[in-house]
Amino acid sequence: MNIAMLGSGGVGQTVGKKLAELGHEVVIGTRHPERLDEKKGYAGSLREWRESTGGRGRVATFADAAAHGEIVVNAVSGLATLDALHAAGEANLRGKVLLDLANELDMSGGAPRSLATDTRSLAEDIQHAFPEARVVKSLNTMSALVMVDPGLVPGGDSTVFLSGDDAGAKAQVADLLRDLGWRDILDLGDLTSARGAEMLLPIWLRLWQQLGTATFNFKIAR
Amino acid sequence: MNIAMLGSGGVGQTVGKKLAELGHEVVIGTRHPERLDEKKGYAGSLREWRESTGGRGRVATFADAAAHGEIVVNAVSGLATLDALHAAGEANLRGKVLLDLANELDMSGGAPRSLATDTRSLAEDIQHAFPEARVVKSLNTMSALVMVDPGLVPGGDSTVFLSGDDAGAKAQVADLLRDLGWRDILDLGDLTSARGAEMLLPIWLRLWQQLGTATFNFKIAR
Repeated sequence: MNIAMLGSGGVGQTVGKKLAELGHEVVIGTRHPERLDEKKGYAGSLREWRESTGGRGRVATFADAAAHGEIVVNAVSGLATLDALHAAGEANLRGKVLLDLANELDMSGGAPRSLATDTRSLAEDIQHAFPEARVVKSLNTMSALVMVDPGLVPGGDSTVFLSGDDAGAKAQVADLLRDLGWRDILDLGDLTSARGAEMLLPIWLRLWQQLGTATFNFKIAR
Repeated sequence: MNIAMLGSGGVGQTVGKKLAELGHEVVIGTRHPERLDEKKGYAGSLREWRESTGGRGRVATFADAAAHGEIVVNAVSGLATLDALHAAGEANLRGKVLLDLANELDMSGGAPRSLATDTRSLAEDIQHAFPEARVVKSLNTMSALVMVDPGLVPGGDSTVFLSGDDAGAKAQVADLLRDLGWRDILDLGDLTSARGAEMLLPIWLRLWQQLGTATFNFKIAR
């Protein structure tokens, strides 16, 4: 199949190469297709990428790539996505499957820290309002039935998360979690990491709806 | 241990009962402790709860419960949490472990739909800007290395999600995912469910940091 891979960074190169290996005709779309020798983050240059595909992969503008693709994959960084799609052109996207795998990461500090929209959590608000309390976020990522009986979830130990600024408080909560039957207790770090735990809820609610049961849980496979 | 369970709904009752069974002295804190016979959503009345603990559990005001607790558990609904904690009183929280397990769910429609703050996604923005493209969100919840080689993650099949409004487009993307080696492909529903998939990134980034590797993934244990 003809596939347009919009975005020439690590994600676009990695997924594009694999799709070429699977026999697809992959064209990477990028703002400056003539700059074949620029290094792209953790990926190599586009010239190296093209060679690695045994000549099956090509490099073109966003518009030429999108025109080529029967499926268009968006692997541009999230905050640059709409600009890149406008450069690709509405006519080149019309009626096509547009597989979006981007995230709106905040790269302002160099490395991706988190989502650009991720600026607070309830747990931090509580800590701010009550600075002398030792706030720990945990157990908010599953049904209450599972909180108190993790064995209800099939398939062995699933995961419970911990966030907090006070190591002693986290250790006390971890003891309590073990009493409840939890074995896979994963410390996410300081209290700002509660943002991530709280942001699991939208997908949790969809999963609840789709699976028709609340006795499921996140497991971090590793 | 003396535990304050702030919040008398299903979560507070379920977790409170289990902690009482484990031998802790649990006091549920609630705005109206005298209303023992009110039903509380999917949980029973507080009188039934108290009886179910064999008399070990008690019901009190937020302040009396917090004063009792060596550990204070926040099981109030997220949007009511700060009011409840102010009612509990700063002095009753000082120096204590405050285990926050609440989520800021939007209950305005009766049932919890999602987070109150969860109102958009990049995928929906793309669909809105390009109404004739058939947008599918997928593969945004793992490292590019894992996208193209799911077997890198130990412990058997982990999960990849799909969101989109066009069933045919989702079927095409699912075929592509199977070509990449994915077996646990979980359809979250329409494109608004991409909010949930995109909001996995903050915890993904923390896990990456904490685990020191990108070859992990979410698995929905069920």
